Amino acid sequence: MPTKIFSAWDWLRTYRRKDLKGDLSAGLIVAVMLVPQGMAYAMLAGLPPVVGLYASTFPLILYALFGSSRQLAVGPVAIMSLLVFAGVSPLAQPGSEKYVSLVLLLSLMVGAIQLCMGMIRGGWIVNFLSHAVISGFTSAAAVIILLSQLPHLLGMKVAPSGHSALHLLNDILRGIGGVHPITLGVGLGSILVLLIFKRKWPKFPAPMVVVGLGTLAVFFFGLEHTGVRIVRHVPQGLPSFSWPAWDLASLQNLFPTALALLFVGFMESISIAEWVAAKEKYKIDSNQELIGLGLANVTASFFSAYPVTGGFSRTAVNYQAGAKTGLASLITAAIILLTLLFFTSFFYYLPHTVLAAIVAVAVVGLIDIKGARHLLNLKKIDGWTMILTFTATLVFGSEKGIMIGVVFSLLVFIWRSSHPHTAELGYLKSDNVFRNIKRFPKARRYPEALILRVDASLYFANMAFLEDFLRQRIVEKLEIKWIIMDLSGVNDIDAVAADTLSDMMENYHERGIQFLFAGMKGPVRDLVSKAGWQEKYGKNIEYLSLQHALKDIGLM
Amino acid sequence: MPTKIFSAWDWLRTYRRKDLKGDLSAGLIVAVMLVPQGMAYAMLAGLPPVVGLYASTFPLILYALFGSSRQLAVGPVAIMSLLVFAGVSPLAQPGSEKYVSLVLLLSLMVGAIQLCMGMIRGGWIVNFLSHAVISGFTSAAAVIILLSQLPHLLGMKVAPSGHSALHLLNDILRGIGGVHPITLGVGLGSILVLLIFKRKWPKFPAPMVVVGLGTLAVFFFGLEHTGVRIVRHVPQGLPSFSWPAWDLASLQNLFPTALALLFVGFMESISIAEWVAAKEKYKIDSNQELIGLGLANVTASFFSAYPVTGGFSRTAVNYQAGAKTGLASLITAAIILLTLLFFTSFFYYLPHTVLAAIVAVAVVGLIDIKGARHLLNLKKIDGWTMILTFTATLVFGSEKGIMIGVVFSLLVFIWRSSHPHTAELGYLKSDNVFRNIKRFPKARRYPEALILRVDASLYFANMAFLEDFLRQRIVEKLEIKWIIMDLSGVNDIDAVAADTLSDMMENYHERGIQFLFAGMKGPVRDLVSKAGWQEKYGKNIEYLSLQHALKDIGLM
Repeated sequence: MPTKIFSAWDWLRTYRRKDLKGDLSAGLIVAVMLVPQGMAYAMLAGLPPVVGLYASTFPLILYALFGSSRQLAVGPVAIMSLLVFAGVSPLAQPGSEKYVSLVLLLSLMVGAIQLCMGMIRGGWIVNFLSHAVISGFTSAAAVIILLSQLPHLLGMKVAPSGHSALHLLNDILRGIGGVHPITLGVGLGSILVLLIFKRKWPKFPAPMVVVGLGTLAVFFFGLEHTGVRIVRHVPQGLPSFSWPAWDLASLQNLFPTALALLFVGFMESISIAEWVAAKEKYKIDSNQELIGLGLANVTASFFSAYPVTGGFSRTAVNYQAGAKTGLASLITAAIILLTLLFFTSFFYYLPHTVLAAIVAVAVVGLIDIKGARHLLNLKKIDGWTMILTFTATLVFGSEKGIMIGVVFSLLVFIWRSSHPHTAELGYLKSDNVFRNIKRFPKARRYPEALILRVDASLYFANMAFLEDFLRQRIVEKLEIKWIIMDLSGVNDIDAVAADTLSDMMENYHERGIQFLFAGMKGPVRDLVSKAGWQEKYGKNIEYLSLQHALKDIGLM
Repeated sequence: MPTKIFSAWDWLRTYRRKDLKGDLSAGLIVAVMLVPQGMAYAMLAGLPPVVGLYASTFPLILYALFGSSRQLAVGPVAIMSLLVFAGVSPLAQPGSEKYVSLVLLLSLMVGAIQLCMGMIRGGWIVNFLSHAVISGFTSAAAVIILLSQLPHLLGMKVAPSGHSALHLLNDILRGIGGVHPITLGVGLGSILVLLIFKRKWPKFPAPMVVVGLGTLAVFFFGLEHTGVRIVRHVPQGLPSFSWPAWDLASLQNLFPTALALLFVGFMESISIAEWVAAKEKYKIDSNQELIGLGLANVTASFFSAYPVTGGFSRTAVNYQAGAKTGLASLITAAIILLTLLFFTSFFYYLPHTVLAAIVAVAVVGLIDIKGARHLLNLKKIDGWTMILTFTATLVFGSEKGIMIGVVFSLLVFIWRSSHPHTAELGYLKSDNVFRNIKRFPKARRYPEALILRVDASLYFANMAFLEDFLRQRIVEKLEIKWIIMDLSGVNDIDAVAADTLSDMMENYHERGIQFLFAGMKGPVRDLVSKAGWQEKYGKNIEYLSLQHALKDIGLM
């Protein structure tokens, strides 16, 4: 179906008065969550807190107008912030002008690639990110984010020496002497309040509460004079428009980070969008999602913001608070714009440690130990895919970690498909069926015939397995005259496999052994008839069932 | 089964007198072929001709004793020689001492990796080289080899500026003024003689004839004084033993070449070995092959030789000339050793252009245009895999070409498996079966039930496709209450796919739609029962057939 670029038209032209209340209250609640989260995540990304607020304005508006989800809450998220920090901080000093300028360029790259992918309908590529990989990566990212917030919570002054978990851990251990007790107290207090709210009143925007309490504590007790670090001046006013500066070297250096942001961001966004859409019974178009997020990120780069995507927790809050359409996000953006215009001075005394506490509590739930145990229990190798991705991300960093996970998960699939399930069959007269002789040892065998079933699409990489399997069985049964294969489990075949099978038939023919095929499916039949098998082998390959084949050669 | 390391024991202890005649004559004929071929291929590899003779001595003996094929003719081959030249010539001036020393180190690396892979039973990895990739690569390598021999045939003096087809073509065009007519005449004459023999007496060792004729022509007419380049002094005596010199940088630089040699060499060797073994009804053990070839290559590196493998054409000749056991190869090696001891002076006047003619005629048959057309006809994408590998090898060189081919062929498989064949079914009362309603438009449909068949193993990368497929069908049929899936084509499932399916079942359940599964196979059943589906969904997932499911819900 063709993509309608301007998705909002769908809900704008049919907007119902009764949806307004839900949209209003959801927009307000998400905004109240987003102000402290945005500032906290911007700091995590190595940016001034106000950039997180900028990222919560125009990008949200663009997504609300062009994205296909009506409840997705777009904006700064923890994992994207980590990826930005990991990718840009080797190229420039975090917080510096050069750093901010590179981040703007990065937003433009992410947005432009998303837009292009959406236009050429390339959303399917995200299917190759296995949930096991995502889950392993997210868990590791959460650990890294926690470690990166510890110095803020402890009031330590450390310049991070790297982005891997080991670097961060090392930095913390070396700086452990510089712990600032009052900062730590404020941080732990914030965490405690957040956890209590999370358990007792999960719908309440607790981050705003700790921001308020923390700011008041600093203001009244003058804690900033004791060494508690505070946000200080947050620039007032709307983000200004600018063109991102670019050069070839920066484009090259940022490219892997842009790809990582693209995939991870899109994956987080589309999972939660699909979840809500399934509940509300409308359809998410993954290509339209790419266009919506792409426009949001391009806008981010023009308005001093940083890469955004749809966030898990805020989307859930948005939906539960009653959001029915993209209007909720427009309201959120409007409130953040008002905040930027009039209320930035409120955040002067806000302590860093409170923001760190907000991040820490937000990401700790991403560490998915239950998921790892579940996967290990269901299928060992899928669990190991998750553990490998987790470990690789901790040790080698985000981009390499996710890459290793993707490649490994695909190799696992290839490996499995190159060792297909193959069974030697015998005849169960009572049921008139053929069954695996390993599971049914009483099934009748025929000394002159080897009856096989292959349960896999045949392609170049699993033919050697099949040849080996046959050769081993033939060695055991010397009086064999027929090899009868049940192909009803073979869904597809490629040309190389068909050629190999044909060679095998000729080789065995020279030794006086005939191949008979039963139950060939449509796609297989189409290919082998192009290869001229009908003329060469005639009815030998066209039996409807094993019974027909055995009757024809007089064994049944 | 356990690997018997010393394979020759099998044929040694049962050696029959009557096999001796075949072994003797085959050993002799292959030796007569191998002397000129060995020298020609060594030159192709950028080495002195005598190195090709060295490579035809001890390595053959080691393979004959430890390899699992009884007819495989091991020694220098064209494509390995090309790979050696492409890999080592960027690191040292071909023919120089440094070059030879790097080649010896390369042999050791190839041999050591082969040995290790054989020991850990890693022979299966070669299954991932599709025949389409091999064929495309071999064709391109043949073109490159032909181009690399042209300057010798034309009597031009050019230092190659690179290894890609474009570089070689450019070199030839720039040097076209320096064509030496007498050299060209001798070369074309040799090609003519070789082609006549190939057509009329294909079993006759024609290379020896042109070597004799060419040498006599130079000797009697004094052609070397007119500028025809000749082999000159070939050192007499056995290859001396030495340890290959090594350093870390060389190991790193040679590593990709070693891997390419390993894969390509093993592939060529095992294909022809399997072909003969199938005809002679014995078994090739791919791991034992790796051990045999590995020992041959390690020996090559100790005795001034270069990487060897089993060659296509010489193995065919060996087999057709009556070789029954490894004794034939031992005889070949003995004759080459005698040649080195007593007859090297015979090759003084041998012209380079004759050797180039031998190589050119040997490789021209490797260009597999028929194969490309065949694959394109059977399955477009397999043909394109071959053409891509061919083009990539020509443009980017051997190692990158084969790598691009392997990755592409695996991506094709993954892509195909992520878009499984899925059909909506209807009921054909006349046959009591369910059929694709697209192929059987008269099949009965049920407004309350959507009946589907999926023909693929389900894994993380194709669940999105299935979800999309379902969603589109559901939109079209609003009164649906049941989704009934025939899983008899689903051979396997991974944990991520099972979780996704479970999520889908719950989402649809909330909308009042039930999933029923019929014909679930063993491996799928095992996994979902671990995930607790039996308890959660009970009989809904356990129908033996679609008929059972439809009867149970009262539709049939």
